[in-house]
Amino acid sequence: MELVAVFTRRQPEQMEASGDGVRFEHISAIEQYKGLIDVMILCGGSATDLPEQTPLIARMFNTVDSFDTHAKIPEFFETVHAAASQGGNVSVISTGWDPGLFSLNRLLAEAILPEGKDYTFWGKGVSQGHSDAIRRVAGVKAGVQYTVPVQSVIDRIRAGETPELSTREKHLRECFIVAEEGADQEQIRSTIVNMPNYFSDYDTTVTFITEEEMKASHQGMPHGGFVIRSGVTGEGTKQIVEFGLKLESNPEFTASVLVAYSRAAYRLSRDGATGAKTVFDIPFGLLSPKSPEELRRELL
Amino acid sequence: MELVAVFTRRQPEQMEASGDGVRFEHISAIEQYKGLIDVMILCGGSATDLPEQTPLIARMFNTVDSFDTHAKIPEFFETVHAAASQGGNVSVISTGWDPGLFSLNRLLAEAILPEGKDYTFWGKGVSQGHSDAIRRVAGVKAGVQYTVPVQSVIDRIRAGETPELSTREKHLRECFIVAEEGADQEQIRSTIVNMPNYFSDYDTTVTFITEEEMKASHQGMPHGGFVIRSGVTGEGTKQIVEFGLKLESNPEFTASVLVAYSRAAYRLSRDGATGAKTVFDIPFGLLSPKSPEELRRELL
Repeated sequence: MELVAVFTRRQPEQMEASGDGVRFEHISAIEQYKGLIDVMILCGGSATDLPEQTPLIARMFNTVDSFDTHAKIPEFFETVHAAASQGGNVSVISTGWDPGLFSLNRLLAEAILPEGKDYTFWGKGVSQGHSDAIRRVAGVKAGVQYTVPVQSVIDRIRAGETPELSTREKHLRECFIVAEEGADQEQIRSTIVNMPNYFSDYDTTVTFITEEEMKASHQGMPHGGFVIRSGVTGEGTKQIVEFGLKLESNPEFTASVLVAYSRAAYRLSRDGATGAKTVFDIPFGLLSPKSPEELRRELL
Repeated sequence: MELVAVFTRRQPEQMEASGDGVRFEHISAIEQYKGLIDVMILCGGSATDLPEQTPLIARMFNTVDSFDTHAKIPEFFETVHAAASQGGNVSVISTGWDPGLFSLNRLLAEAILPEGKDYTFWGKGVSQGHSDAIRRVAGVKAGVQYTVPVQSVIDRIRAGETPELSTREKHLRECFIVAEEGADQEQIRSTIVNMPNYFSDYDTTVTFITEEEMKASHQGMPHGGFVIRSGVTGEGTKQIVEFGLKLESNPEFTASVLVAYSRAAYRLSRDGATGAKTVFDIPFGLLSPKSPEELRRELL
């Protein structure tokens, strides 16, 4: 693999200074690289970037993205599929870990254990959306929100129980806040814990900390979680399948998944495929630099 | 899915009596079913059954098997590939959970985290090969061997350590024995714990129990285990990927995996593929009864 260039909406000259020899280009120069780049890894956000960027770029290049608005995936798939097919390219959409590796494990466990129930837990980790939400509350200077799975519930599922769980029973939300000077902390707390969609359905804790503490202990982007399926075969025989991630850096891990899927995008395209693909359409063998013979010998 | 018939080397009449309406046929009748059966699920053993049966049957039908002699997979693949290609059929070889789901997770985690180290632990579960070995020791009337992963080592890996582990440090072997009347228990114990290949590289315990205890507590076939990869991204950021199974019945779960892969074998064949395939070659989407649209909407 070779990094050819990084395309940016900022001034590429400014980026280059800190770029360690990496070539930066303005996004407007993208067309000049047609035929020179095997796969474009799209790093934009799902709200407004990717719905525009993926169809546009998929007309010119193979792409991989991490579009993660679950409810809009079907519509996104159709749009990208049309664009990539038109350009004769392959677009791997919605990869990363959820959607991505977690989705794969939900599918796999359901296909093997059709009688069963699955559970997805996220965390402990930073939720960007919820952190943004608390930072918009009046009087909040800085804030981080951690999603925390309820360990006692995970233990019950691992032991073979298949409880019906409300939102509140699966995850806690922990907020760490630096308040503006003179701000009403009780007012901030109450606004957060009662915020609809984001916090009102959860048990939420709000802890006020100093700016120094925020810098010292809350700069990382850890995340992770579990997909657990508890099923039965035969006459009530319990079978449990579990996949878990424990990540010190969510963005670095997500990027690593996208890089592995870019290998598959290139190979699929080289072999004549076109259109949008998801993780469900791609055999794992295409993710590895090893040949099929090496994989059978070393990893099967 | 429909179960058309079960083929046996025994007398099919004898099987039918206990078969709950299932059709049993002698293995010699197999050719008469050409064109009537989409996929044959091969349930033979890896030592002597499958090396003969898979190539023979792959000339006539799509097949799925659980060939699990890791060292012989490359050779087995080539033989089956030739036979299945000649017959115009698809043969999914070496599926189940190891080889199978564990192999998939070794590949996936290695492709995403190329800098890292992976660990496979088996158990707690019954090892058929080791149970057979102890039952061949003079004076042993009945015996079961459990492979037990060393929990303290798993905890270290989950916490981010990447230790170099000897065979002895990863698993214990626990043997439960019913001795013949008058047999020398110390002699049995010593023969077992010093048995080369099977036990001499492990810490092995031998516990003598009564025949009643054996029947009451050791008739199940539980198994399971973990594949854990501990890797780094960026400048030493720790990332841990883990897949685990906790199975009350190893054979029932393995069968469930083979059934899911039989769906893929049929679909691949229907779409024109031929030859041998492994789990590395098959997209997960083909395992599910759901359509690609349903999968994207419900599980991605």
